[in-house]
Amino acid sequence: MRQLNAILRHILHLPFKNLTLNACMQMQQFHCSTSHLKHNKLWNLGKINHIALVTPDLDKSAALYRDVLGGRVSNKQPLPEHGVTTVFVELGDTKIELLHPLGEKSPIQSFLERNKSGGMHHICIEVDNIHEAIKDLKAKNIRLLSEGPRTGAHGKPVIFLHPKDCDGVLVELEEA
Amino acid sequence: MRQLNAILRHILHLPFKNLTLNACMQMQQFHCSTSHLKHNKLWNLGKINHIALVTPDLDKSAALYRDVLGGRVSNKQPLPEHGVTTVFVELGDTKIELLHPLGEKSPIQSFLERNKSGGMHHICIEVDNIHEAIKDLKAKNIRLLSEGPRTGAHGKPVIFLHPKDCDGVLVELEEA
Repeated sequence: MRQLNAILRHILHLPFKNLTLNACMQMQQFHCSTSHLKHNKLWNLGKINHIALVTPDLDKSAALYRDVLGGRVSNKQPLPEHGVTTVFVELGDTKIELLHPLGEKSPIQSFLERNKSGGMHHICIEVDNIHEAIKDLKAKNIRLLSEGPRTGAHGKPVIFLHPKDCDGVLVELEEA
Repeated sequence: MRQLNAILRHILHLPFKNLTLNACMQMQQFHCSTSHLKHNKLWNLGKINHIALVTPDLDKSAALYRDVLGGRVSNKQPLPEHGVTTVFVELGDTKIELLHPLGEKSPIQSFLERNKSGGMHHICIEVDNIHEAIKDLKAKNIRLLSEGPRTGAHGKPVIFLHPKDCDGVLVELEEA
């Protein structure tokens, strides 16, 4: 089985080691496009690191995912340098990050004012080389929310893509 | 290594077979709550099946994830019985589903009218027993968008939870 797994991964040229065999098999069903001809292969997209939800009540949201849905939920983690308090919900190889504003200048305060009940804020996808990703995205006229990478909430380099260039969705890339 | 993996999973009582060892190790870092005392263990939450994004231009969005970001992107799949055309982007053990309205009575038409540039529509989490999940959620006063499970876009039973009971987020559960 391990050999089969290794062979499948080799055939499919999977860049990330922690993909499951199930995921490999699903990919076989895909009609892969000619993306490799267009995409700059100096960097690769990985898994979804997290989906960030903003909530008006972090304890209530944590209780929903822990006590009602039975998920594995972390304690609250204040990140004053990022202006948020976070709670993580582990789900397979990705996670939900519940966010609530912290401090005066929280970057999610205005989102919560526009969405008083809370809502989906951004998705974060891993990349293996954020500097190459940034160069490539700039060359393809994707607007970025900062000139270069910044240190994200997990202590790793991140960059945010402008929602106007991503169909209304705020997309974060994180170097994993 | 496989034995270690099995032992770790046993210790952590992981319900889903396709969790990677990395995911297991990450979970060890979690301060697990007493959720198992409150949550009805007749059903278990699994991985995130997909994140659904609604887009005003499916070809443009598919090109973004395929040609700009280099993701594995499926062909367009019209699902007239669900009122949507979908494109899947495989990312680790989960996926992004790009959705565009199809037909007169598409359930995502009003979302696109409110969010003309597109946006994040819902998250779908897997469960191992949707009937037990529904009984449990009803007992915990979580409002559902249908009385019982319906057949979702993947041909599996699904139920949607009311966003007002999920911090402004539309949550779908799918029996995997």
